[in-house]
Amino acid sequence: MGSSEKTVRIGLVAPGTRMPPELAERARVLAREAYGDRVELVFHPQCFLSSGHFAGNDATRIAALVETANDPSIDAIWFARGGYGACRVAEQAIPQLVPGTRAKKWLGYSDTGFLLAGLYRAGFSQLAHGPMPVDLIHGKDGEAAVKRGLCWLVEGAASALEGSLTPDHPNLAFNLTILSQLLGTPLEPDLAGHVLMLEDVGEYMYRIDRYFFHVTSNENVRQCAGIRLGRCSAVPKNDPDFVLTEEEVARFWCERSGIPYLGRADIGHDSNNKVVPFG
Amino acid sequence: MGSSEKTVRIGLVAPGTRMPPELAERARVLAREAYGDRVELVFHPQCFLSSGHFAGNDATRIAALVETANDPSIDAIWFARGGYGACRVAEQAIPQLVPGTRAKKWLGYSDTGFLLAGLYRAGFSQLAHGPMPVDLIHGKDGEAAVKRGLCWLVEGAASALEGSLTPDHPNLAFNLTILSQLLGTPLEPDLAGHVLMLEDVGEYMYRIDRYFFHVTSNENVRQCAGIRLGRCSAVPKNDPDFVLTEEEVARFWCERSGIPYLGRADIGHDSNNKVVPFG
Repeated sequence: MGSSEKTVRIGLVAPGTRMPPELAERARVLAREAYGDRVELVFHPQCFLSSGHFAGNDATRIAALVETANDPSIDAIWFARGGYGACRVAEQAIPQLVPGTRAKKWLGYSDTGFLLAGLYRAGFSQLAHGPMPVDLIHGKDGEAAVKRGLCWLVEGAASALEGSLTPDHPNLAFNLTILSQLLGTPLEPDLAGHVLMLEDVGEYMYRIDRYFFHVTSNENVRQCAGIRLGRCSAVPKNDPDFVLTEEEVARFWCERSGIPYLGRADIGHDSNNKVVPFG
Repeated sequence: MGSSEKTVRIGLVAPGTRMPPELAERARVLAREAYGDRVELVFHPQCFLSSGHFAGNDATRIAALVETANDPSIDAIWFARGGYGACRVAEQAIPQLVPGTRAKKWLGYSDTGFLLAGLYRAGFSQLAHGPMPVDLIHGKDGEAAVKRGLCWLVEGAASALEGSLTPDHPNLAFNLTILSQLLGTPLEPDLAGHVLMLEDVGEYMYRIDRYFFHVTSNENVRQCAGIRLGRCSAVPKNDPDFVLTEEEVARFWCERSGIPYLGRADIGHDSNNKVVPFG
């Protein structure tokens, strides 16, 4: 690349839980190693605040998100981490975003799905479900995930994308719990015709089953083109044993609700989490 | 009471998780001590079956529920316990219930809220949220709860009722998680004008907050006359500390969504759990 090439400035905010500063520094080092001066990670100081469960109170997190996204010198918005809290900021932040934010890329997953859903509903077209800097907590494996996210943000590289994506259907990806918790709210997008990829982490099998009941019983979800199941990791031991696997659960509820079950999706709370652009 | 008085036969089924037989026996002893021959607890053998997480597979639980409720010699239906699984049986069981089941009392709470919701939606008028035989796991305290449930089933005694009930509004009570998970499904009743009492057990504060986001963002819930917060017990330690209490969370989301917050409700997963008749 020529030295005159414009630096891609990626703005980072934490709409839920606080980001440890050391992880942010490691993400900066990783970006420098991969792209040199071509990429700059701009962590908003809000990422490092602490207010009870959250990275600053609601007003602070909303202001940081709006300020970062609306900054014309920021090319893309990357959620630093999930945790919990995006549902407390999304409805108030989204209407404050200027038109220029629609042309920017937005990347995140897990709890930040509340925001991605609301942005998709609002007509934003450059959204994706994929790795966040907090994935560096997974060490070397996490680095591969974070590089993948960066790669999509900077180059839009096909190698970062989930392998089952086809141009035949628009796609969406969510954490199963987050999708359940946004159905019926002002953040719920129109799901008709979309392939829906769902992953989860840290949920008991009986809860995965209950979320599938909830999600597949929804009229909007029933209009989707089909469901692909991502990985369900760190599932606590069910007592008694649930017997059914997560894929058996997904198949059961898809069949019962008339939704095509399309197989597995290569997404999850892990280092192999691939990027799923929305739409 | 005269010896010619008809025996009240209460049919018990377990639409979710298995009931330990020893608890059933203790419930029978309790009923005998309180009412002698005036009351008979008829536990369907299905209560004691085991199929993975459930008290028998879905078809078995559906059949037991329908058989018990439709039996003309059964005067009332008491869910033996919750656990998880009522959402797997409700939609198929309810259409199989004969008209005579509408005049019978139905009592339960927790996971059985899926069934109570679906029955209320279907026009059943003798439903109540209140103690179940499984509460005997709480020892002497549990006995008080179970006696209260029995008292409502047999005598409809006012002493069993939640203290804030007034004839001004119809009432409904649910486990917060269960209400969240039935919104948007065919089990969701019309909530307009109802006072909604919500309790929960074993949920992290961040999840209670998220459920309140989900529930209070719902257009149907926003038509309710107001929310009363029952007890939230066995809340695991949030890391970091959530700072907000469950009542602060309830007030926050009610205020944000324009739902009147009416104060506390005397319900919960405990021995003080009072009876809330639906409607």
